[in-house]
Formats: sequence, C-alpha cells, structure tokens
Amino acid sequence: MNDRVSNQPTLAADAWWLRSCKRPDAERQAQARARQAQLTKPPGSLGVLEDLAVTLSGLQHSPTPKVDRVWISVFAADHGVAAEGVSAFPQAVTGEMLRNFAGGGAAIAVLARALDASLDVVNLGTVNDPGAVAGVHRAVIAASTRNFCEGPAMSDAQLRAALGAGAASVRAALDAGAQLFIGGEMGIANTTSAAALASALLRRSPSELTGAGTGLDAGGIAHKIAVIERALALHAPADSDWERLRRLGGFEIAALTGAYVAAAQAGLPVLVDGFIASVAALAAQRLNPGCGDWLLYAHRSHERGHAMVLEALRARPLLDLSMRLGEASGAAMAVPLLRLACALHNSMATFAQAGVSESAAQQA
Amino acid sequence: MNDRVSNQPTLAADAWWLRSCKRPDAERQAQARARQAQLTKPPGSLGVLEDLAVTLSGLQHSPTPKVDRVWISVFAADHGVAAEGVSAFPQAVTGEMLRNFAGGGAAIAVLARALDASLDVVNLGTVNDPGAVAGVHRAVIAASTRNFCEGPAMSDAQLRAALGAGAASVRAALDAGAQLFIGGEMGIANTTSAAALASALLRRSPSELTGAGTGLDAGGIAHKIAVIERALALHAPADSDWERLRRLGGFEIAALTGAYVAAAQAGLPVLVDGFIASVAALAAQRLNPGCGDWLLYAHRSHERGHAMVLEALRARPLLDLSMRLGEASGAAMAVPLLRLACALHNSMATFAQAGVSESAAQQA
Repeated sequence: MNDRVSNQPTLAADAWWLRSCKRPDAERQAQARARQAQLTKPPGSLGVLEDLAVTLSGLQHSPTPKVDRVWISVFAADHGVAAEGVSAFPQAVTGEMLRNFAGGGAAIAVLARALDASLDVVNLGTVNDPGAVAGVHRAVIAASTRNFCEGPAMSDAQLRAALGAGAASVRAALDAGAQLFIGGEMGIANTTSAAALASALLRRSPSELTGAGTGLDAGGIAHKIAVIERALALHAPADSDWERLRRLGGFEIAALTGAYVAAAQAGLPVLVDGFIASVAALAAQRLNPGCGDWLLYAHRSHERGHAMVLEALRARPLLDLSMRLGEASGAAMAVPLLRLACALHNSMATFAQAGVSESAAQQA
Repeated sequence: MNDRVSNQPTLAADAWWLRSCKRPDAERQAQARARQAQLTKPPGSLGVLEDLAVTLSGLQHSPTPKVDRVWISVFAADHGVAAEGVSAFPQAVTGEMLRNFAGGGAAIAVLARALDASLDVVNLGTVNDPGAVAGVHRAVIAASTRNFCEGPAMSDAQLRAALGAGAASVRAALDAGAQLFIGGEMGIANTTSAAALASALLRRSPSELTGAGTGLDAGGIAHKIAVIERALALHAPADSDWERLRRLGGFEIAALTGAYVAAAQAGLPVLVDGFIASVAALAAQRLNPGCGDWLLYAHRSHERGHAMVLEALRARPLLDLSMRLGEASGAAMAVPLLRLACALHNSMATFAQAGVSESAAQQA
C-alpha cells in the first residue's frame, strides 16, 4: 500500500536529503520590495505583510505571489516511549484520530475545508491500527518506534523510510500544483520525542524544552523530564544529528524533516506549524542547512519548548494564539495572512495609479 | 446628501449614547465552553480560538456563532492641527484617499474584497473635497476640525453629528444583516489627535503616547509632542471626557466612538482596529462603560501609543504584525481568525461522535 515510497526505490539507496536546495530569487525580492514602496500607504505600514509578500515573491519567482493552492500533509505515528506514561491521553488515540482526520471532524480537517486546502493524511504506523481507511494514505513503517529509553527509536532503514514518506508527500503536493506546503503531526507521546530531540540538537537541559503536551500536570511534566534525561544519557554516544534524529525522533517527526528538505530542494515554500514541526525543521536544517530559506513559521505554540526552538531557528512566527494542538492547526490559521499579504501586494494601487500624493520624503 | 443622519433627527436632540448597552448571553457562553471541552482535542489546546468562539456565542446569542457577513465602515476627515506640520504626508491625501477607497486600490478595499465584506466609505469632511464620488457616502460636517492648538477641535453640534454618523453606519450594517462591525479611519494628522485625546483621557504624558504616525523622523516626533503639549495646556480646563473628545478629537475618531456605542446598544459585535480606533474605543467606554463587552481587539499596532491604550482597555489583541496603516486594515486581517474559530467550534466532532478516547482527567 505504501505506493508513493515504493515507487521511489532510489530514496533508500542514496542520501537524497543532502542534495542542494533551490535558492530564492533575490532579484524578484528586490522588485517586490520596490513595488511595496509605490503602493498607496505609508512606506512600511503593512509591517510583516510586506515582508511576507516580498519573501513569497522571491520563493515563487513571481511578481504576483499566490497561496491559493495549499497542501496539508498530516503524518500520524506512535511512539514506543508512550510506555513510560508521558502523555495525558492513551496511545489508542493516534489510530482513532486517523479516522477523525479522514472523517472531517478533527480540527485540521475543519480548517482544511474552510481554507479549501488539500488534506493528505498519512499513517506511518499506529499501535491501534485502523487498517485501510478511505482518505488515509498508508505508509506504515512499524506499529511504533522503539521506546528510546531502551534503545534507538528507529533503525537506519526506518529513518530513511520516514524521511522518504515526507518527500513523497511533497511530490504529491507538487503534482497537485500546490503553492505552499504545510506539514502536521499526530502521535501520542510525540512532544516527549520532540523535546528529547531538541535537547540533544541544541545541547540544552530537557527541563527547558519539556512542557505539558496534551495536558500533563506538574507531576506529569517532572516525570516526563526524568524520562527524557534517562534517554539522553543512554544516547549520549550519538555523534551526529542524523544519529540524534534516529535515536530520539519519531516516524512523523522524521517525515516532517524529510518533507521540509524535499520542499526546499523542489523550491516549494513551507509554512511550519508548532513545537514538534519546528523541531523537525531544526533537524532538517541540521541535515541540509540550505533548506532554511524555504521555511516560514506560522505560530508560537503554548508548548513550553517552542520559544527556545524558534530562537535557535531565528524564526519570527506570525501568530501567537496560545494554541498547542499540533495537526498543522497553527499553520492553517496563518494561511489567510499569507493570502491577504499576496492580495495586498498584487492588487493595491500605486500612488501614480490612484493619483495620491506621496510623503515629503518619498517626493524628495 | 447626509441622508443617514438626517433621517434620524432625534440623534441630535437627546443623549442617545448614554442609553444602556445589550448584555452578552452568559448561559450561551457557558454552553459554548462546555462544547469546547467535548471537541476532539486536548482541552484548551485551541487557545485564544476557544475564547473567541465562546465570546461570539455569547454576543450573538447563538450556539453556532458566525462572522460570514462583515461590515467595514471607513470614516475619513481632516484635522485643523495638520497646520502645525505634524504629518509626513500633505493634507490633500485625505480627500485623495477617498477616491482610492471607492476605486478599490486602497489596502482596505483590497482586503474587503478578499474577505467578501461590505465596505462603507464615509466622507465626514475633507479640505481637498472630492465632491460626489460613487461609493463614497457624504456626511460632511465641515471641511476639517479646528486646529486644537487654537481652540476646541469641534463644536458641541459637530461632535454630536460625528457620533451620529458612526451610529448611522451601524444602522446600515444592521440593515445589511452584518454579524460583525469594523470601523476604520483616514485623516492626515489623526495620530496627533488620537495621541492628544489619549493623553487627556489617561492623564499620561504625550511623550508616552506619541509616535511616528505615517512616518515622522525623531525630530518630527519631538515637534508633534510639543504641539500636543501646547494643546493639552490650552484644554486643561476640560472637566469631562465628553469635553476632552470635543476639544481634542476628530470627526472620524468621534464617528468611531459613536459607532462602538451604537453597536453595543444594538448587540452587534465589533472588531476594533489599531491605535486611533482603540483611542475611540477608550472614549466610547468613557461615554458608556457598558459598551466594552462588545469590543474585540484585532491587533497591536506598531504605533507607539497603542500598547498603553490597549493596557488601559485591558485588551489582548489577536495579531501583532507591526502594521500601522489604519483604514481598518489590521481588523480586516483578523477576520479570518474569527471565521476559523467559529468553523472549529461549529464543525469539529466531539469525542463521542468520533469514537476517540478522552484523557484520563476527562474520563475521571
């Protein structure tokens, strides 16, 4: 059933994620910046919206950037570390939510419909496997990762498969003519994996990166930190970021990592979601630093570790709505901002067109 | 031509703005809060979006809040204090921009079109009067306010007319079936008026509330502060907030004030724009404290004084995009957030509907 990956046998055979990423079009960006200065508003008064339009203009190599066609891939997978009791929800929820994504009742399904975006739901492996479900793409790697308190979360082949599943979703997005790629995740215990991975990548204490996830109390968070500390001690021998991702990551986190790299290689702009997606973005930049230009950051999650990860990425997210759901929901909320930024850039009148006087500084 | 105001002769005859405002429906809010806890997501994980849906449910007295029909009124007016050289743009721009609003090239016109919102452009008086323009509603009070460095900006009758013009736009919005009212402003030198009024209402130094407006440099801002200090000294005898609004406000600021009060009296939710609109909201709450429940705050403007005004209003705006354009542009950007918050609230599946397990805490 894993058709999109199996159609690409070369994925596992070479280190495709090291191939160079596309470069933004600096000339288009300069032209877009010049156009912004001519539009009927005080220079700079649209703030971040001006920067967004300029950035998208450069990424899309277009004087009229557009994000009409948005592709959202949600990767679901289970985590062996759930056995350590690190989540407020039972592990069965990962599989149950796959039906809810496909059935239209989950938050991201509602948002995708409202935004007229394509929703690609990918099952990378769930303990409570729903089997074949209409609207769910099966790319099962294993029922779950291994508990990383006992050994590496993934084998080398599993990590390659997960990265490849992300790349396959990007190819599907490109085939559909997407102008923007969004990745989301679902997986009980995946804030534990993301916090452990971020701690290892950033060499910071897990206490700085570990939060309540889906709703732990203070005691639960303390236990989660202790679990991560054990795992970090076990995996201290990891001597590369690839190894850290393999030992502490998850299938859905690695799929996001692979998707981000593949999107940057193909020149498809990405809108990154919250804490877990941002940790995947950090891993992607470590595997292939050239991908950073293609990653826009949607929101600041309420989850404790996100601020530190965003800082490491030098990211300035668009929204801060105290969301902490995942599923790409925060990224979906930011899509209208990108669309309206493009509409303003493409459709506002210039001072000359509208017969409006410029400021003294502009006239000078 | 001032048909909407002249059809309401009682407006000028009594203090309509003192009449009581509607009350939000606390029972509906409690029901909405209970529904949010049953939706397939960790409790609270949609953050501000949950609060928005609950608030709108209470304001609209509906289990399924909606902001499909949005009404945007942009009030344009000139300010006598422009003669003091407090703006980076010439005064002619106010009148010129009226044509640009109606012609579709201004930022708010582009945004209204993209949001499928009704755009009501109201000319309250401009020195460079464009005369009759298709798509511009004439409600001219005078060519401009008086320079408040030399005397009160408005007469009592002018202030009443401006408040009434705002109320007339709210009536037009209600007639059109609007589910949300947004007010915007355009007027060269109106950040000077707003900063002066906010200083007087909050009894704070103008240096804390005065910013660059459309683009003053440091010297320009220092001059603007000195102008406001002169005005505050001249109008120190003002012994009521009504008097402060009359002496230091502007036609468009007072129209926003009147609109906010009228919307609250009619039970129509309002999304407040940036610095100038927030100062009008402050004035509205001083004239009629009951209106505060109906005012949602869209964004934190880049204009210097906005943070202090928001703090005084205990407002937590939705967006922070370094915008400083006015015209209701910041409020327009936040409309999709409200719409998506409603879609999530109205369309997500509950745990029971989706067959998804709840957390241990929810099951207990």
